[in-house]
Amino acid sequence: MAKEDVLYQHGTLALLVPGLYDGTMSVADLLTHGDTGIGTADGLDGEMVILEGKAYQISGAGTVREMAPDELTPFANVHFDDPTNDYDRENMTSEALEQEIFKAHTFANQFFAFKIHGTFGHVQTRAIDKQKKPYPPLAEAAKSQHVFEKDNVTGTLIGYYSPDLYQGTTSAGFHVHFLDDDRTFGGHILAYNLTSGKVSLQTFSDFNLHLPVHDSHFVQADLNDPELDSQIKAAEH
Amino acid sequence: MAKEDVLYQHGTLALLVPGLYDGTMSVADLLTHGDTGIGTADGLDGEMVILEGKAYQISGAGTVREMAPDELTPFANVHFDDPTNDYDRENMTSEALEQEIFKAHTFANQFFAFKIHGTFGHVQTRAIDKQKKPYPPLAEAAKSQHVFEKDNVTGTLIGYYSPDLYQGTTSAGFHVHFLDDDRTFGGHILAYNLTSGKVSLQTFSDFNLHLPVHDSHFVQADLNDPELDSQIKAAEH
Repeated sequence: MAKEDVLYQHGTLALLVPGLYDGTMSVADLLTHGDTGIGTADGLDGEMVILEGKAYQISGAGTVREMAPDELTPFANVHFDDPTNDYDRENMTSEALEQEIFKAHTFANQFFAFKIHGTFGHVQTRAIDKQKKPYPPLAEAAKSQHVFEKDNVTGTLIGYYSPDLYQGTTSAGFHVHFLDDDRTFGGHILAYNLTSGKVSLQTFSDFNLHLPVHDSHFVQADLNDPELDSQIKAAEH
Repeated sequence: MAKEDVLYQHGTLALLVPGLYDGTMSVADLLTHGDTGIGTADGLDGEMVILEGKAYQISGAGTVREMAPDELTPFANVHFDDPTNDYDRENMTSEALEQEIFKAHTFANQFFAFKIHGTFGHVQTRAIDKQKKPYPPLAEAAKSQHVFEKDNVTGTLIGYYSPDLYQGTTSAGFHVHFLDDDRTFGGHILAYNLTSGKVSLQTFSDFNLHLPVHDSHFVQADLNDPELDSQIKAAEH
């Protein structure tokens, strides 16, 4: 398998749900597994976007900065950007773009990256503030999220689709972030529509899940939450 | 990460549930990812045990043979054998052995290999016959399983534990097979008790899931089965 066939993930959505937000992998380590991706930072400190081998953090205050190699993340996905499909699209809603992908059913059972670079008529994002210990559960932390909006913004939407089977390991369905070309606006996407841009998909044969097995909080946690699915949906959608 | 830190899996339990039994990876390819493991063969043809770099098939008739490099598997797990914990035990039931592992909670959230080499007072196994097309669902195929029993048998119990979160991707909990030292008796373990032997555990930081993305049956299948959990439990326990 080629490195472009692998979606790498550090941590699970399930470990964020009860509040395991301490960073357990450095940005430098993460970037050895991919040059493109999404995640969050130590303490659930904002939203991460990784483009062209650089990791950016969009903070709860809405500011964007490049992260240092020694900063830590509790949860992130990366891959080496090399789209398997790309096509131009104009004037489409997020729903229409997503529905189009599944028309042929080809993508439903696969992990794939979903990237759009272009101009968006409207983008609505959120970012969560860095949490204080003792950490609250994810659904609680998400209630204090800050919502940002921008019209006619040019930038990159980047994220992943994972099949329903992997809910809990991942946030099943689409999970996408945004960063504008000026590196001044972004976050976890709540809503968008596309004016004009290039849609790129990259399917993966391999999903490499890396767990923080040397972190005592992870090892000792009770991660069998019967409400996992609804907790994730409350926090991530 | 070292290669010994990786649990490699080809396919998912979820794809077996509706009957996707065609082999999609060769034994030769599989063995590049590990020298130890378990699985099944093309057409759900018996139970596979991989020890010291050799893949053995226990057929529905109960016969054991070494598999050829070009034979195919729809589902298998392998790793490179290098235990992180081992200890000798005598006169223990399967329940006592499993409970002992989780006393410290250390293992509950991790993937790990579970191997015992020793003499077993009793081993009960099953093996499923090769299925004919159109393939029946897994729970249906499992009804025609053959059950085998042997007392005072010396051999290797080998398999994996995966946390509940991964049910469907894997068969959550313990999933273990057996092969005796004479290579004449084995299968998917239904019950056992240990007279005397060495228990070896090997924890993994990485779970590498490989999907048959070039197989049209996999790509086109409807794998969103709301009864997935009960279907797996009916077939695997």
